[in-house]
Amino acid sequence: MSNTFGQKFRITTSGESHGKSISVIVDGCPAGLTLQVEDIQKELDRRKPGQSKVTTQRKEKDLVEIHSGVFEDKTTGTSIMMLIPNTNFDSSKYEPFMNVFRPGTGDYTYWKKYGIRDWRGGGRASGRETAARVAAGAIAKKFLEIEKIKVIGYTIKIRKIDADRNKFDFEEIEKNLVRCPDKEAAKIMEEEIIRVKKLGNSVGGMVEIIAKGVPPGLGEPIFGKLDEAISDALGSIGAVKAVEIGAGVRVAEMYGSECNDQMTRDENGKIKFLTNNAGGILGGISTGQDIIARIAVKPTPSISMPQETVDTAGNKTTIEIKGDHDPCICPRIVPVAEAMVALVLVDYLLLNKTSKL
Amino acid sequence: MSNTFGQKFRITTSGESHGKSISVIVDGCPAGLTLQVEDIQKELDRRKPGQSKVTTQRKEKDLVEIHSGVFEDKTTGTSIMMLIPNTNFDSSKYEPFMNVFRPGTGDYTYWKKYGIRDWRGGGRASGRETAARVAAGAIAKKFLEIEKIKVIGYTIKIRKIDADRNKFDFEEIEKNLVRCPDKEAAKIMEEEIIRVKKLGNSVGGMVEIIAKGVPPGLGEPIFGKLDEAISDALGSIGAVKAVEIGAGVRVAEMYGSECNDQMTRDENGKIKFLTNNAGGILGGISTGQDIIARIAVKPTPSISMPQETVDTAGNKTTIEIKGDHDPCICPRIVPVAEAMVALVLVDYLLLNKTSKL
Amino acid sequence: MSNTFGQKFRITTSGESHGKSISVIVDGCPAGLTLQVEDIQKELDRRKPGQSKVTTQRKEKDLVEIHSGVFEDKTTGTSIMMLIPNTNFDSSKYEPFMNVFRPGTGDYTYWKKYGIRDWRGGGRASGRETAARVAAGAIAKKFLEIEKIKVIGYTIKIRKIDADRNKFDFEEIEKNLVRCPDKEAAKIMEEEIIRVKKLGNSVGGMVEIIAKGVPPGLGEPIFGKLDEAISDALGSIGAVKAVEIGAGVRVAEMYGSECNDQMTRDENGKIKFLTNNAGGILGGISTGQDIIARIAVKPTPSISMPQETVDTAGNKTTIEIKGDHDPCICPRIVPVAEAMVALVLVDYLLLNKTSKL
Amino acid sequence: MSNTFGQKFRITTSGESHGKSISVIVDGCPAGLTLQVEDIQKELDRRKPGQSKVTTQRKEKDLVEIHSGVFEDKTTGTSIMMLIPNTNFDSSKYEPFMNVFRPGTGDYTYWKKYGIRDWRGGGRASGRETAARVAAGAIAKKFLEIEKIKVIGYTIKIRKIDADRNKFDFEEIEKNLVRCPDKEAAKIMEEEIIRVKKLGNSVGGMVEIIAKGVPPGLGEPIFGKLDEAISDALGSIGAVKAVEIGAGVRVAEMYGSECNDQMTRDENGKIKFLTNNAGGILGGISTGQDIIARIAVKPTPSISMPQETVDTAGNKTTIEIKGDHDPCICPRIVPVAEAMVALVLVDYLLLNKTSKL
Repeated sequence: MSNTFGQKFRITTSGESHGKSISVIVDGCPAGLTLQVEDIQKELDRRKPGQSKVTTQRKEKDLVEIHSGVFEDKTTGTSIMMLIPNTNFDSSKYEPFMNVFRPGTGDYTYWKKYGIRDWRGGGRASGRETAARVAAGAIAKKFLEIEKIKVIGYTIKIRKIDADRNKFDFEEIEKNLVRCPDKEAAKIMEEEIIRVKKLGNSVGGMVEIIAKGVPPGLGEPIFGKLDEAISDALGSIGAVKAVEIGAGVRVAEMYGSECNDQMTRDENGKIKFLTNNAGGILGGISTGQDIIARIAVKPTPSISMPQETVDTAGNKTTIEIKGDHDPCICPRIVPVAEAMVALVLVDYLLLNKTSKL
Repeated sequence: MSNTFGQKFRITTSGESHGKSISVIVDGCPAGLTLQVEDIQKELDRRKPGQSKVTTQRKEKDLVEIHSGVFEDKTTGTSIMMLIPNTNFDSSKYEPFMNVFRPGTGDYTYWKKYGIRDWRGGGRASGRETAARVAAGAIAKKFLEIEKIKVIGYTIKIRKIDADRNKFDFEEIEKNLVRCPDKEAAKIMEEEIIRVKKLGNSVGGMVEIIAKGVPPGLGEPIFGKLDEAISDALGSIGAVKAVEIGAGVRVAEMYGSECNDQMTRDENGKIKFLTNNAGGILGGISTGQDIIARIAVKPTPSISMPQETVDTAGNKTTIEIKGDHDPCICPRIVPVAEAMVALVLVDYLLLNKTSKL
Repeated sequence: MSNTFGQKFRITTSGESHGKSISVIVDGCPAGLTLQVEDIQKELDRRKPGQSKVTTQRKEKDLVEIHSGVFEDKTTGTSIMMLIPNTNFDSSKYEPFMNVFRPGTGDYTYWKKYGIRDWRGGGRASGRETAARVAAGAIAKKFLEIEKIKVIGYTIKIRKIDADRNKFDFEEIEKNLVRCPDKEAAKIMEEEIIRVKKLGNSVGGMVEIIAKGVPPGLGEPIFGKLDEAISDALGSIGAVKAVEIGAGVRVAEMYGSECNDQMTRDENGKIKFLTNNAGGILGGISTGQDIIARIAVKPTPSISMPQETVDTAGNKTTIEIKGDHDPCICPRIVPVAEAMVALVLVDYLLLNKTSKL
Repeated sequence: MSNTFGQKFRITTSGESHGKSISVIVDGCPAGLTLQVEDIQKELDRRKPGQSKVTTQRKEKDLVEIHSGVFEDKTTGTSIMMLIPNTNFDSSKYEPFMNVFRPGTGDYTYWKKYGIRDWRGGGRASGRETAARVAAGAIAKKFLEIEKIKVIGYTIKIRKIDADRNKFDFEEIEKNLVRCPDKEAAKIMEEEIIRVKKLGNSVGGMVEIIAKGVPPGLGEPIFGKLDEAISDALGSIGAVKAVEIGAGVRVAEMYGSECNDQMTRDENGKIKFLTNNAGGILGGISTGQDIIARIAVKPTPSISMPQETVDTAGNKTTIEIKGDHDPCICPRIVPVAEAMVALVLVDYLLLNKTSKL
């Protein structure tokens, strides 16, 4: 389903970077959910370009309109269409690359697949499509609020700078430009991004997403495992090259006796786990612990340093992508990753309503 | 879709570890594909238990029957049902755990989700369900043969023992017990597994899957990216806790100038990439290079060392899982991972038939 | 989805007329439903061949096996596989038609579509595939029992003989060979079928299905209307050439003032409708009245009278289909139509669990 | 899938009668199809209100905007979003019915299902949603043009006035107000509609859809039969209460020898059928003959004659729906029915690309 995500709570998106609009239709949202434009806008503002000195300086207001599915500030159960008009774009900057493949982007592959390509601003392959995800995710978050589930994303690594888990303070996340819960590391990460930007280069990083308050029992066991769905959701974000759940790649070096999350009973007689290497998911189903996922985010491909490439005629050439691009997408990918996880959780909460009599 | 995987080439599986059979219905396979029981059986033999001293010693023949969809050794275009009768099982060994949650398994979560649980051999949550995937994957591989695409899986790490890429020889993979292309590392890995087994413990590892010969243009751009589909496919395997594509987690430490795969033209005038950090996928669509994915495989949860746990009544207890379990699932996960990637590739080849006029 | 039906409660079927078995995987059935082989068998017995002098005399026991998804007589929430071995078949009778297209069947179209065709007993195009639907429908009926919903099918017309609604007694349905609630008409219908059979011909008819006890609110408004889903479900049965809902074709001659089902309040203060032209569905959603559907069933195409046709080489020829075929499929289509409506209702009951907060 | 239709060529619609817009996202359209706004607009003009004296006099321009998926007048393979702003609406006319259920509409059922209802202009249950179908269908028609397939819809009956097949002239369809190929009958139909309108009543009718040029081989055999898909597509249109394929309800009175379409070889050696009772579909797959479907269309429920009904509080009341409504929806349902059949055909053409090797 190329432009649709989800099963019961489904989103279908459309829109190119320099087309008329980015839009999304959300289907399957239960009726009766309180929803106002502000609920959507505040999430879009976290994703929008031009928000700080470590992001692209291009200004785009990204003002969302709700076209359907909401009546008197309540969802009606019918499909919700949201539209974000594209206003501030200048396709002329892309003209030099009309027939040249920018390395690390979908330019070459779209051209091979479709034989035609909207080259203006990267067209459909632009990260701008994630605005639709964030808008839909904002509705998902409203739903999760009722269920007392919170999805929190944050940067844990930029290049070789790792955040220190002992210094995590989630209150700090939205207070620094890189959205890192370790404010000291955040400072150094910011400096690193600015340094790299000056070089005309870009840099990768790592983002973690935690979902708190997820009840046990969510997840379809074989081909709809909750961890699989999260891998799919996060793996659908353009810049993501790896998805880890719980202990992730570290399990490869573990013994079973270390990796297994043993269980006990707490003082109130409640079942609890001694560790959370599973990232809150066992057998594809949530355990009731925190859901933990991590993504490796590649450096933005658009850099102004010269790169070797070819054009549509097959000629060798050199490309220098001037213009204003994100030197590191981690800070802006945080709300996108949160949105994707929120969409999965709502979908699975709805799916789970019929798991037993 | 809890038991269905794929879009155009779809599989639906069923069966518990100690039920009558494991089965799979393959839908959407084009008519006219040559197919015999042997094509399926040889892949199942690579996955079956009891194949070597580093796997479980439990013997299960896993003989497959084709019930429908094939006529005179050709697929007819209708649904193909394959059935693997369960023959050699002894549920009595599981009786002690009938009401006790084995750490690291789906015991607790299935019980929370469904309120009922087939505890015999792990029921539906048993790794035995992957036999159905391998059977279906064998059909996918027959299809890929025609397209000259080859999917190769192998172990690259067991605990702290890493295979050395400079010593890779793909001919070695099926010659050693751990399915590792570095035969020296394979030797040490085998020893390590046997050592750990004697301790009543288990160990994790890492498996890599390469697809060679994939044409450019496969992949649905936004929510059906080829890398996303592979993340989903591999992430659906029970023991997998991380999926990497191409450079994977390493991209987090890279500059854009390192990470971008620059392009050139080879001596024959063909476009080629200088590197393959993307793992053969850009913008969610295949580039024509090798597709590369890696999975982190957790240690088998069934260990005989004592572990803390609780029972269904919430009482604390200690569990020692005697019996014969895989000390490391990597060697047997290789054909499963190959099957899942093969299923994705066939599906995407079929999906791509209609990408342009 | 060529072999899958349903959304939350989904069935996937396989099997050819003269293959090893007919099978079905039911996915999405909630855990905890009491289910025994007898529940399935009794519905299959209503569909099986050889049950009376107005059906084919071919004997086939159609004994069902439950392979998975049921533990200690309860569904576990995992996929339920049921298998009906094919035992009594003789493909040699079909050899003369191996390369000849039987008029009114899928012989020609399967050959055009797939370029290969399992000609034995009609292969996948045989009405025998409906055994899988009936088996799955039996599970759906068990679910509906809990919800106090009853699905009743019956013959209302065989050729020019119409049942008289004034004489309907639902207790009569299973007491006569044609499954007609008007026992006098049933008698005449039986005679007509026997008369036609002697001529080596076959005859069509009409079957009605009523669902009683369906709560208001089922149905997805735009592309999953409850009437649409029923049209789809019944239209998927091979012999069906028309589906009517409520007043059906008669609405074409009505005024709005006649057709609209006006509403009032009964003596207990409950809302009630004065008529039921809508067949219990308005705006695609159930009203709480009886759901009423009717299907036009074409005469069985296999007749022994000579017919003009062609062979695979394009030569003109004449065909006489000897052997034992149903002279009228209405009596045996009744349980199939009930099964399909039952499947839709369970699916929509499950879908509706998330329509509002 | 409440607001999504189709498999490979999929549409997702949104919008209420008196909301900001009606919109549709078309996914799966192959790249390279020539498409301009005019292609869409001309079909919307055939559906729009106010087009003649037999339709509602409400004027709505229904001007469509293409927001994405088209670049330089060619489809790019990405999702195509089309938007029709709602401009001329006056919700105040609906205020009296805010809490009263209009008989024959979805008012009551939406309220039961969702507990909330956008009562302005019928909200999502308004026939206005079909504008989205027509817009998407226009793209489907562009695709069918390339394949030389033509979908033609027309009115064949209004109340007791039947068109005479001997007088059919397809050139007449768009020349009269009821879209009937028998121009004499058309005249009488028009008069009948105007007569009924004056009475404050409405009237039903029958519409037929023919698809010419469909190649043999389209259709998925078991649960995606071409006739089933058409039944589903047409059954999803609000006013439709019956769908017939080919001989439709008439098959109930036929012998097998009459109903079977016998085959022969024409003078050019081509296989041909002697009749077309099957409506161009056998075994769920197209035969290459004309596809023929018919729908029974109920009278518009909104009539100004007094009707008994109840309000949301359960009180009995009488309703008179003044304002300007279609006295007969047949003329305007023609382009909608064509659109739905066109959508199915494109979807099935695409699905069929992978039926055999």
